[in-house]
Amino acid sequence: MMELTRRNLLATTAAATAASALAPFVGGARASVPEAGKQAPGIYRYKIGDYEVTQVADGARSFPMPDNFVTGATPAEAKKALTDAYMPEGKLTIMFNPMVVNTGSKLVLIDTGNGPGAYAQTKGAVGQLHGNLEAAGIDRKAIDIVLISHMHGDHINGIRNADGTPAFPNAEIMVPTGEWAFWMDDANKSKANPYNQNYFPNVKKVMTGLESKVTKYEWNKEIIPGIHSIATPGHTPGHTSFMVQSGSGKLLVQSDVCNNPAMFMDHTNWIAPFDNNPALTLQTRHKFYDMAASEKVLVAGYHFSFPAVGHVEKNGKNFRLVPVLWTPV
Amino acid sequence: MMELTRRNLLATTAAATAASALAPFVGGARASVPEAGKQAPGIYRYKIGDYEVTQVADGARSFPMPDNFVTGATPAEAKKALTDAYMPEGKLTIMFNPMVVNTGSKLVLIDTGNGPGAYAQTKGAVGQLHGNLEAAGIDRKAIDIVLISHMHGDHINGIRNADGTPAFPNAEIMVPTGEWAFWMDDANKSKANPYNQNYFPNVKKVMTGLESKVTKYEWNKEIIPGIHSIATPGHTPGHTSFMVQSGSGKLLVQSDVCNNPAMFMDHTNWIAPFDNNPALTLQTRHKFYDMAASEKVLVAGYHFSFPAVGHVEKNGKNFRLVPVLWTPV
Repeated sequence: MMELTRRNLLATTAAATAASALAPFVGGARASVPEAGKQAPGIYRYKIGDYEVTQVADGARSFPMPDNFVTGATPAEAKKALTDAYMPEGKLTIMFNPMVVNTGSKLVLIDTGNGPGAYAQTKGAVGQLHGNLEAAGIDRKAIDIVLISHMHGDHINGIRNADGTPAFPNAEIMVPTGEWAFWMDDANKSKANPYNQNYFPNVKKVMTGLESKVTKYEWNKEIIPGIHSIATPGHTPGHTSFMVQSGSGKLLVQSDVCNNPAMFMDHTNWIAPFDNNPALTLQTRHKFYDMAASEKVLVAGYHFSFPAVGHVEKNGKNFRLVPVLWTPV
Repeated sequence: MMELTRRNLLATTAAATAASALAPFVGGARASVPEAGKQAPGIYRYKIGDYEVTQVADGARSFPMPDNFVTGATPAEAKKALTDAYMPEGKLTIMFNPMVVNTGSKLVLIDTGNGPGAYAQTKGAVGQLHGNLEAAGIDRKAIDIVLISHMHGDHINGIRNADGTPAFPNAEIMVPTGEWAFWMDDANKSKANPYNQNYFPNVKKVMTGLESKVTKYEWNKEIIPGIHSIATPGHTPGHTSFMVQSGSGKLLVQSDVCNNPAMFMDHTNWIAPFDNNPALTLQTRHKFYDMAASEKVLVAGYHFSFPAVGHVEKNGKNFRLVPVLWTPV
């Protein structure tokens, strides 16, 4: 019987290597069955009361994390958080998760991913939304409303096809009033931090020409039957979260209250360069997670790991995410 | 601006209800798009060195947890663990996750799920393996080896089709020597606890007639190139885990070292009725998780939540599972 010790584990793997070197059918021979070579489409369905929610992954990117990336942590602390979360050393992975809510009367897409340009540029790592919607059997022409949480490129670029035409041709595009006002006026550049100053041209490029499709919405309203807007400013001036409710079923859609939860929820006071107003970001974040934790409400997060939904818990001075148990039916 | 307080959250949802009552197109009207009404197939791919691993969900069952279900906890403690894990009050959810390893020379299925009989009986809640393999593009005829960890029904019943014919007609069925000896001889019933005594007839029913396809394997051997057997007895006398290794890539396949991790990993010393030898189960479990945690090896667990793979960490006197970040490519 194998003793389960570190020494024997290493012995086992050394033996495996030796055996592999000896076995001509390992490595040298043709596979009996070729590998699939690609991931299954990122699609996950669940019910909120009578509503059907479909999480549809847009993809993920990993990039070397700059030393000054996190405000509120030393470079060493920030890097340790990556390895603590089993990410590759020094590399941060950011995941993108739009979602579709079928309320029975409206088919609502919340945020649109990185778009076809990023799909081409990243060789399919991100910008998967259009393809994954198709895999989910959701016709883009059937989307009634594209609901935008805020106007960063990873949330709005999927509004257009590669050729620039609207990707959701029959959809009304709903944008927070304050968000539209902020980004569509270059006079506001001076109110943005360096990262966000760079985002102004993209917002104009994506949204200009779509004005006739755009409806602006206010905070703290039932903006679509069953969907309330919740003011969560800080990340951007008009950044908005949502409450989806049907019967006793509730879902908080946090949008970007935090980015990667292993970094910015586990360390609730850390700030990313994308967060335009750090103090307001933290004030919003603490309020939002206090509420989510005390109410034990299910929370969907755009940058959570797919299927991007779970419960938020208090963890000392910080919070943590407990991912939902995957329901296979 | 909405204040993020509990009072306002409740006000929001009250308003939602009022609005819904007034809006004739909510609830009363036809959906613009019908709901999909079913979950996306549970399929998740990742690489271990050169090998391609596909997690293929067999489904999940929830059932009212009997008061005496957990040895090592009071009924109240056991029930609290369910709600702490956001499971419905008093109900335990058990998930089932077979997996396929394509080593390049062999296509290996590890465990086979609850089978077509359970699929019919549970209206598709479990027994999804055959359907999900098809959705994954894996032909059951192409499976070279069915590798069995132990002979409980949720691991072996998928070996047969509904009509009793072999579900993997071209596969060798590999079974732990000690496991075969234990279950195929009714004289061993007296060595089993009450739950396991009831499992004897099913093992005979499933395996009898398949003897010519069955190969028995020993512990602590490279039983398939790149796959080692690891002795992890206790849950059953011949219960076996595996180490899958390719190059520097390593994956521990724990099989049933614990059942639902929120119950039996978070509370490492709790025992389920399925665990035949409690003392040996705990000895094995602690050794296995000590090793997995200190080595930071990726661990696949048959009863983890899909995609059923993650890292095991020390958490005081217990351990906890950190689910893998879903890689969308």
